[in-house]
Amino acid sequence: RSFNRLDPRKLDQADLAEAYDRVRRSTEALIESLGPEDQNLQSMPDASPVKWHRAHTSWFFETFILKPHLPAYRPLDPGYEYLFNSYYNGVGRQYPRPRRGLISRPDQAAVTDYRRHVDGAIQQLLIQLDPPTLRQLAPLILLGLNHEQQHQELIVTDLKHAFSFNPAHPPCFGTRHEPSGQNAAFDWLGFEGGLFEFGHEGPAFAFDNEMPRHRAFLAPFELGSQPVSCAAYLAFMDDGGYERPELWLSDGWSWRQVEGIDAPLYWWREDGDWWHYSCTGARPVDPDSPICHLSFYEAWAFAEWSGARLPSELEWEHAVRALPIEGHFADRRRFHPEASAATGLTQAYGSVWEWTSSAYAAYPGFRPGKGAVGEYNGKFMANQMVLRGGSCATAAGHLRASYRNFFHPHQRWQFSGLRLARSAS
Amino acid sequence: RSFNRLDPRKLDQADLAEAYDRVRRSTEALIESLGPEDQNLQSMPDASPVKWHRAHTSWFFETFILKPHLPAYRPLDPGYEYLFNSYYNGVGRQYPRPRRGLISRPDQAAVTDYRRHVDGAIQQLLIQLDPPTLRQLAPLILLGLNHEQQHQELIVTDLKHAFSFNPAHPPCFGTRHEPSGQNAAFDWLGFEGGLFEFGHEGPAFAFDNEMPRHRAFLAPFELGSQPVSCAAYLAFMDDGGYERPELWLSDGWSWRQVEGIDAPLYWWREDGDWWHYSCTGARPVDPDSPICHLSFYEAWAFAEWSGARLPSELEWEHAVRALPIEGHFADRRRFHPEASAATGLTQAYGSVWEWTSSAYAAYPGFRPGKGAVGEYNGKFMANQMVLRGGSCATAAGHLRASYRNFFHPHQRWQFSGLRLARSAS
Amino acid sequence: RSFNRLDPRKLDQADLAEAYDRVRRSTEALIESLGPEDQNLQSMPDASPVKWHRAHTSWFFETFILKPHLPAYRPLDPGYEYLFNSYYNGVGRQYPRPRRGLISRPDQAAVTDYRRHVDGAIQQLLIQLDPPTLRQLAPLILLGLNHEQQHQELIVTDLKHAFSFNPAHPPCFGTRHEPSGQNAAFDWLGFEGGLFEFGHEGPAFAFDNEMPRHRAFLAPFELGSQPVSCAAYLAFMDDGGYERPELWLSDGWSWRQVEGIDAPLYWWREDGDWWHYSCTGARPVDPDSPICHLSFYEAWAFAEWSGARLPSELEWEHAVRALPIEGHFADRRRFHPEASAATGLTQAYGSVWEWTSSAYAAYPGFRPGKGAVGEYNGKFMANQMVLRGGSCATAAGHLRASYRNFFHPHQRWQFSGLRLARSAS
Amino acid sequence: RSFNRLDPRKLDQADLAEAYDRVRRSTEALIESLGPEDQNLQSMPDASPVKWHRAHTSWFFETFILKPHLPAYRPLDPGYEYLFNSYYNGVGRQYPRPRRGLISRPDQAAVTDYRRHVDGAIQQLLIQLDPPTLRQLAPLILLGLNHEQQHQELIVTDLKHAFSFNPAHPPCFGTRHEPSGQNAAFDWLGFEGGLFEFGHEGPAFAFDNEMPRHRAFLAPFELGSQPVSCAAYLAFMDDGGYERPELWLSDGWSWRQVEGIDAPLYWWREDGDWWHYSCTGARPVDPDSPICHLSFYEAWAFAEWSGARLPSELEWEHAVRALPIEGHFADRRRFHPEASAATGLTQAYGSVWEWTSSAYAAYPGFRPGKGAVGEYNGKFMANQMVLRGGSCATAAGHLRASYRNFFHPHQRWQFSGLRLARSAS
Ligand SMILES: [Fe+3]
Ligand SMILES: [Fe+3]
Ligand SMILES: [Fe+3]
Ligand SMILES: [Fe+3]
Repeated sequence: RSFNRLDPRKLDQADLAEAYDRVRRSTEALIESLGPEDQNLQSMPDASPVKWHRAHTSWFFETFILKPHLPAYRPLDPGYEYLFNSYYNGVGRQYPRPRRGLISRPDQAAVTDYRRHVDGAIQQLLIQLDPPTLRQLAPLILLGLNHEQQHQELIVTDLKHAFSFNPAHPPCFGTRHEPSGQNAAFDWLGFEGGLFEFGHEGPAFAFDNEMPRHRAFLAPFELGSQPVSCAAYLAFMDDGGYERPELWLSDGWSWRQVEGIDAPLYWWREDGDWWHYSCTGARPVDPDSPICHLSFYEAWAFAEWSGARLPSELEWEHAVRALPIEGHFADRRRFHPEASAATGLTQAYGSVWEWTSSAYAAYPGFRPGKGAVGEYNGKFMANQMVLRGGSCATAAGHLRASYRNFFHPHQRWQFSGLRLARSAS
Repeated sequence: RSFNRLDPRKLDQADLAEAYDRVRRSTEALIESLGPEDQNLQSMPDASPVKWHRAHTSWFFETFILKPHLPAYRPLDPGYEYLFNSYYNGVGRQYPRPRRGLISRPDQAAVTDYRRHVDGAIQQLLIQLDPPTLRQLAPLILLGLNHEQQHQELIVTDLKHAFSFNPAHPPCFGTRHEPSGQNAAFDWLGFEGGLFEFGHEGPAFAFDNEMPRHRAFLAPFELGSQPVSCAAYLAFMDDGGYERPELWLSDGWSWRQVEGIDAPLYWWREDGDWWHYSCTGARPVDPDSPICHLSFYEAWAFAEWSGARLPSELEWEHAVRALPIEGHFADRRRFHPEASAATGLTQAYGSVWEWTSSAYAAYPGFRPGKGAVGEYNGKFMANQMVLRGGSCATAAGHLRASYRNFFHPHQRWQFSGLRLARSAS
Repeated sequence: RSFNRLDPRKLDQADLAEAYDRVRRSTEALIESLGPEDQNLQSMPDASPVKWHRAHTSWFFETFILKPHLPAYRPLDPGYEYLFNSYYNGVGRQYPRPRRGLISRPDQAAVTDYRRHVDGAIQQLLIQLDPPTLRQLAPLILLGLNHEQQHQELIVTDLKHAFSFNPAHPPCFGTRHEPSGQNAAFDWLGFEGGLFEFGHEGPAFAFDNEMPRHRAFLAPFELGSQPVSCAAYLAFMDDGGYERPELWLSDGWSWRQVEGIDAPLYWWREDGDWWHYSCTGARPVDPDSPICHLSFYEAWAFAEWSGARLPSELEWEHAVRALPIEGHFADRRRFHPEASAATGLTQAYGSVWEWTSSAYAAYPGFRPGKGAVGEYNGKFMANQMVLRGGSCATAAGHLRASYRNFFHPHQRWQFSGLRLARSAS
Repeated sequence: RSFNRLDPRKLDQADLAEAYDRVRRSTEALIESLGPEDQNLQSMPDASPVKWHRAHTSWFFETFILKPHLPAYRPLDPGYEYLFNSYYNGVGRQYPRPRRGLISRPDQAAVTDYRRHVDGAIQQLLIQLDPPTLRQLAPLILLGLNHEQQHQELIVTDLKHAFSFNPAHPPCFGTRHEPSGQNAAFDWLGFEGGLFEFGHEGPAFAFDNEMPRHRAFLAPFELGSQPVSCAAYLAFMDDGGYERPELWLSDGWSWRQVEGIDAPLYWWREDGDWWHYSCTGARPVDPDSPICHLSFYEAWAFAEWSGARLPSELEWEHAVRALPIEGHFADRRRFHPEASAATGLTQAYGSVWEWTSSAYAAYPGFRPGKGAVGEYNGKFMANQMVLRGGSCATAAGHLRASYRNFFHPHQRWQFSGLRLARSAS
């Protein structure tokens, strides 16, 4: 079972050491086929070089655990505090994000050294600390591990974005391509309304933005049994979905016009067929696979066209709370969503993140953590929409029903799709 | 009593004619001191020329009432359909919004003719229609009147914005300046939690976005007795409020840096004192008057600095629902917020719009109106935040407890301030 | 004969008063059909409102003549020094050029007052000054008059640009439209090479950039007998001229692609025919009329396509120096180029400015005037190309063989065309 | 002696093979200390990755020599034709220049293979061709070698630009730093006027833009004996040179304001001293070393401040034509300009490129080469200014008196300085 299902304060030194080792090694396993040039690419300000992710996740442990809690710790390079700080103003100024791809030195080998340096110090800290102190630190260590899991997903999506500019469409991750299979028939699943509790509960790890547990009222609603497929999305496109302003939010229609959007990200037309750039290279669009790389605006327009709507994040959470947290995750090393022949509410977790109709905002009574770590989630609570459910690039064991992901409505480089909802009549 | 408090289906021909006449004449009264050059100014894409507002509000009646319901109606100029359509894709293409200020012809006199042409036709329609048809049309006529009231407010805020670029700081509206008076002492007012109903109810006019009436759960909370004053905001500024990233949302801090923001809109420093451009010209900042021309980001940062937060739109609605809809509105012709010596929950209505923490979104079960009129509100439900309560530039009689205004978080040219809230301990 | 052909020091008080009066009145005559809204339009940073031109030309007399030379002079409004300064850093800061259209006050009536105020003071100055002082001032007065003539041309081109955004294509100047007539046959005219003198000579007025008189060597060359016609340009377009990068300068090709240029400014296609917006409204393109509203890049590409080249400014000056300064100028009040049935080197002056291959640069030994007036021409000697010959919007009497106009290579809103040249074999 | 001083048609197979080998190996020697990440950096659209330069110079030989002249030639990768084409529309479309840094694959090892592949094919071609054919091809081979020498200089300046964004200021080239020495005293050197010949003459290699040889007239002038030093430039800065609009061209002043320029590129102030990023890392500014990394605008403003001007390119060429082509070039592997204690006209070649007052334009009678190679120089003849003399990063043997370099007036990332001129009284 994932360390994320356990009470951190009951993890002993060996548990933590193993969890740490497992997460850190899985980052390095993910990138083992990438060359130094690959690791240095940055294709837009929203994305970062692989090398930077590998360093920044180490910086996180160094900054929030080693520097304050291991007195003997000596940083490998004093310049890294500035270079690998993402956005923590409480720690200090940051190297400008859009220029991360201009840092060739430290090179990837030096970053590997940095990771080893931090790994050694963390293992040393785990050995040295007495159990009560360790219990106190455990939540922060788990935060560091969950943070690294999040950056593992970004490594996949950021490099996919960068590689998409290469006219040769080289594969980037998980070179083994397998057919997606077939979907079960679509169905509507109904849910009663009522006053329910939402958000994370219990001793296991969760991010601050999933709390506090609180009550909210839901009207009765229905949810689609499966994420929207490429076949359904192609029907929307064939029906002029990208040319009909009445289906779009006003900001979405402007975005579409200014950016010249007429298909999901990474799609192109060739001899009458739709192709897309996937992590295993150029592939024909597979009708049964869940649609992904949609913006919120496209997801909204599709839902309008369907005569339905996006679910709110609370509807989604309510609907899935009893389901097992299983799905098509990164541990399968097939970095593309896949069809599912299962019936009932399928693929709630994995395959694609699902846009919801909910703006990312604080739960009633929310207070971010103290100090710079408090900048992790709270300061992003404007202009972003919540996505739920995880994707094929999310680490297995990383998710739960209350998990909230969030992106700006125009962003498409995540594995982002949707599930339909409608209000019960 | 305002026609907005009555059941539109109980208004007879004379009621409607009088309401129409009153609203239309108040638009013309508002702009009577403006010259033709004044009326043609457009200082940013978000704002429109006064002349355009005068024409567009007429276009609204022409498009949604006269063309479909008065068979004998002849448009004054066929080009106006395109020129004065704001954003109704269902009606057709629109002249590009950022270029409205480039239209010198029709000039202001021609627009006056256009208004008279439409006025005559509407009065003719009111006389001709049989009572049952009139009852059916009444909601649409009231929509047109409320629409014109909204544009009256925009006439004030848009021209104030344009005039602010004139180094001579000429007065634009309501040249009579009066001192603002003194505020009562600030107080926190407590409210019980529970499951309550929200949104508009009853036969009187409301916009579609205020509906449907629905239930939601509130935790106990407290609200500030009055809008935040300039004195309080100056204390925030003196305490380095604009230089401390920990007080700001991430998008807000970027906005502040990119735009070089360090004070509310229209403020400048002169010999150690803060001045601002008001509708009556350059004035020293009055400490007791409610702070206004804030972005959502600034309102948020101020609330953080205060150890408080913004209220949600539902907390606001719950707190004010029993209060009379009174306040400092446009009928006073003093287009600047004013202090209030009253105690209890004061100035809920009028003086300044109050930013809430709520993203502008559909209420559960929301469905926009059929046809092009359905574009009025619904398609803007992304990236905007709700403001409540009305301002010194809002038409008296225009508001109610369920009224939802909305703007993008960086926008500041409305009379936008805030009221503090906090969760009850 | 124009005052520009005479020795300024031989003009007496009456001559100067009459010249001043004539130029100033011709500005007012030009704009008499324009309403206040028309006069306030600014459609791009390169262009200014008509009202601003009327004020700025008055500012020029006020700043460089009245303030220094008429002790009793009192400015009408002290704010005008800042508001109507175009680019003279030596005079002080300037109101931002892109915002000139946001100044509704002073309105057009107040600007008329300003013009009268300055006119009165100038006439007073002319009466008061003793003849020797007047002789000294005369060159500066003539500079002011030539300056106003230049702004008369800009009034036409700037307002034409602004009106082009009006979908109704209203006429702006010279409402009488007349057919253009037919051209004589095209011919090549040959010129011997040699060491020649260039630039202005003699006592009559000229701008500083036309001096000093200097020697330069020309190889033998040929010049087209007439400006390039629309018919010839249409042949270039039909031959794919806008789609063939090999015809274009690299910067020109980029400009074309980024801006989406595929025809001269103000042209559009309607039912298979080319139309254009002219000062008398929408008109079909007239094949015999000289092509205009071209950028330097388009002129270059056309010349490449023709197997020819643009003339250098010195070739042009050498070729026309013996010709009379006659042509289709603004005094005809037909603000569009016209065909000419004359033979020999025709239309050297008037109809269209002709792009040359010469970058605008200082002549050897050039020194700009002392003081702020020295900013008139010299500081623009980078990134601009010289045009020669004047246009249908240039004041009659304003030009001479050595006259140098200059614009950036992408600018098209002047009446700018070309004449072909080639090196003699 | 450099192959550039010889008649290409007199070079035999062995001469060409040796010249080819020498130039190609010097490229690889230049970059031998760079890692794969270094070679992939692109810091602005004007600059390219080192790896791209290495591939593009090979592409040039492949495209213009191997494909048309070696029938057995097989490209290593068909995608390279598109990927490594810089701007030759005659060859086909090009991968977008601003995205060159996003191409991680082919990686640097694959580019090394590409270079070897081309090298082998060229050596094979040199062996196979009969002498008459070789004589015909020799000018094209020399063009390829000169092209590669130009890109060697760009490798230095482009990577220096990229490394300048690294806060650690890592050295990039020629890590041996040596003090610059002291300058001789500044002197003015006079030149007679007259009608002279300019441009390249004789059988040795030159670019098409240096021809044809032609006559032009020069007035008498004087030239500074040495390039302007940092000490002189610091005096300009101390005298408010960056704050005085009267010293600047209008476009230069706008550029300075928009970009916030107040020192040469790569300079910063630290504890009251000026430092700069050099190829050997951060260094204090050396007063005696020639000023470099100036834009044309800064060079112009400095000359104005000095009461002098920039020389025209013809004045420069006339003044240096008798001097030996010696100086501080790239073969010294010290990539920074240096002082010179010599007297007379010093450092005409090497150390810094010298901005001239001449816009880059065709010489009278200029015709570019036939086919795609004709795009090499001619299509850039707009908006650029000529620089003369070469720099510390120019290959020794690459230059001559008639050599014309050219950049846009705002560009500063070359080793660009200036030499003063003035007109003889
Ligand atoms: Fe992070
Ligand atoms: Fe409207
Ligand atoms: Fe002027
Ligand atoms: Fe090249």
